[in-house]
Amino acid sequence: MPLEADRRWLGAAARLALRGRPLSRPNPAVGALLVSPLGRVVARGWTLAGGRPHAEAVALKAAGPAANEATLYVSLEPCAHQSQRGPACADLVAASGIARVVIGCGDPDPRTAGAGIERIRQAGIAVDLIDSPACAASLEGYLTRAHRGRPHVTLKLALSLDGCIALVSGESQWITGVEARAHGHLLRARMDAILVGGGTLRSDLPRLDVRLPGLESRSPERWVLTHGDAPPGWQALPSPTTLGQAMPQAQYLLIEGGAGAAAAFLAADCVDRLAIYRAPIVIGGGQPGIADIGLTGLSEAHGRWALSDSRQLGKDRLEVYERNPCSPA
Amino acid sequence: MPLEADRRWLGAAARLALRGRPLSRPNPAVGALLVSPLGRVVARGWTLAGGRPHAEAVALKAAGPAANEATLYVSLEPCAHQSQRGPACADLVAASGIARVVIGCGDPDPRTAGAGIERIRQAGIAVDLIDSPACAASLEGYLTRAHRGRPHVTLKLALSLDGCIALVSGESQWITGVEARAHGHLLRARMDAILVGGGTLRSDLPRLDVRLPGLESRSPERWVLTHGDAPPGWQALPSPTTLGQAMPQAQYLLIEGGAGAAAAFLAADCVDRLAIYRAPIVIGGGQPGIADIGLTGLSEAHGRWALSDSRQLGKDRLEVYERNPCSPA
Repeated sequence: MPLEADRRWLGAAARLALRGRPLSRPNPAVGALLVSPLGRVVARGWTLAGGRPHAEAVALKAAGPAANEATLYVSLEPCAHQSQRGPACADLVAASGIARVVIGCGDPDPRTAGAGIERIRQAGIAVDLIDSPACAASLEGYLTRAHRGRPHVTLKLALSLDGCIALVSGESQWITGVEARAHGHLLRARMDAILVGGGTLRSDLPRLDVRLPGLESRSPERWVLTHGDAPPGWQALPSPTTLGQAMPQAQYLLIEGGAGAAAAFLAADCVDRLAIYRAPIVIGGGQPGIADIGLTGLSEAHGRWALSDSRQLGKDRLEVYERNPCSPA
Repeated sequence: MPLEADRRWLGAAARLALRGRPLSRPNPAVGALLVSPLGRVVARGWTLAGGRPHAEAVALKAAGPAANEATLYVSLEPCAHQSQRGPACADLVAASGIARVVIGCGDPDPRTAGAGIERIRQAGIAVDLIDSPACAASLEGYLTRAHRGRPHVTLKLALSLDGCIALVSGESQWITGVEARAHGHLLRARMDAILVGGGTLRSDLPRLDVRLPGLESRSPERWVLTHGDAPPGWQALPSPTTLGQAMPQAQYLLIEGGAGAAAAFLAADCVDRLAIYRAPIVIGGGQPGIADIGLTGLSEAHGRWALSDSRQLGKDRLEVYERNPCSPA
């Protein structure tokens, strides 16, 4: 099978994985495809709510005898550790009768990290580990936890052309149009947790829930950045630096403002992505979207962000910037 | 000749016209093409420096006898008024032996306004006036003067993602990279005049000249927004509302900052285009690019601007917004 075809199937597995997000928590959202020697998809699977069964188990069960001689494309290395919640996927795969496994991303979990691949190879099944950017992207929350010990953090901003989130009077409804706001709800629906600053909580009393039909149950945990207590239904995070411990299971966190909370996370270098909904309006002398982040020179500002996506949403533009992996940690 | 081909030739005439900008002042920058019955370009012309000769005169002279039976494509209606500086183009065209004239935009100048077309028709030459957006765009400075009594105004801003033009300390060199800054010089080279606020003049002492090889002579007139006196080499504009009288010959004005000058022109509704060079950096709590423009509610901010162009310039993005013609005047 040429590498290009393998990459395409892995891309499809990565797309499937997104169906598990975020309800697969605390497990990573994984996608799996079984493809026959003739190139037909014989089964699909993704990690189900609560994290079990895993994607591979779902696909193998759906395929039944059709798994024979098939190739398994899976976005993350099959797990090597049996738990009370289910068998190790590597054992399931080893006993499945499939001919080959193609994996898009190695598992950094020390209980698996290469052991999953090894166990499958010992069963006489060919295994290829291909570094798939699509698979890594679909696992960014899981990988950020593994490498940084905290969830993947997206800072969402609804800004005017001149970077304001409100008039001086505080009027902020609305900067962006209905399309951008609906897209913002879709963003929320993919998150485990969502956070605002104390000032925003007090002044706006935001619900921060997902108001898209059929996705209401995806509303994330609500957090407030405060040294004090959180109101009922909310949890308190004293500082961005305590993020990893405070949210041990969250893979994806969305910061929704205000300017102080945005600045606190940026200053602590705890933002992986900027999602800027940019309205084609000029406010002029309004409330800025981001407070002081402690820069002492312009050179510190450069090289940190790279545009990864940009699209029109009604009259507004969504601009997505990724934290540059080469920027200072 | 099908309309689509006529439009394409008018588009080519509009592109040619840009070669005359801004040195054609005080005349509009016009482009003209003579096309043979077989569809071959037999001559081209654009308004020369100082405004004479006009584009049609240049093309007809270059064509000589080859003008016979040709079609003249011209971005603006040929002038009907003879002056000490040259003959009326309508008379030249009427006597040229060409078969047809296609015009991309009627001339709002009352000395011509339809009289140019009429004179050519009386000579037995077919004339089509086609409303060409490309021709109108190439004449926007001339048309803005005719309709609004002032030059076409572009507000240029070099902004961070959060809308800042400098750190709180005032450090502003550089927000954008070399590609964006070179593009900014190209923008200057197409302007008749350039303006900054008094604060920017005092603090930055900007040269505001064009530093592109071969275009140094295109440096525009320098203006400062002030009720006081202008330093040598500069002219003073007391208020955006006096723009039309203060610069009677300028067709294109560029506002280069700072935040107060930008706000003054926006508040007076004297900005036709925003050219935002957007750097992929976050400043956080820096100096905003646009000061108070007197909005009393967010609804006043909406519907005024529409994205017309967006392009990558090195690491930066250029976003161009046009004043919405339907917005309140």
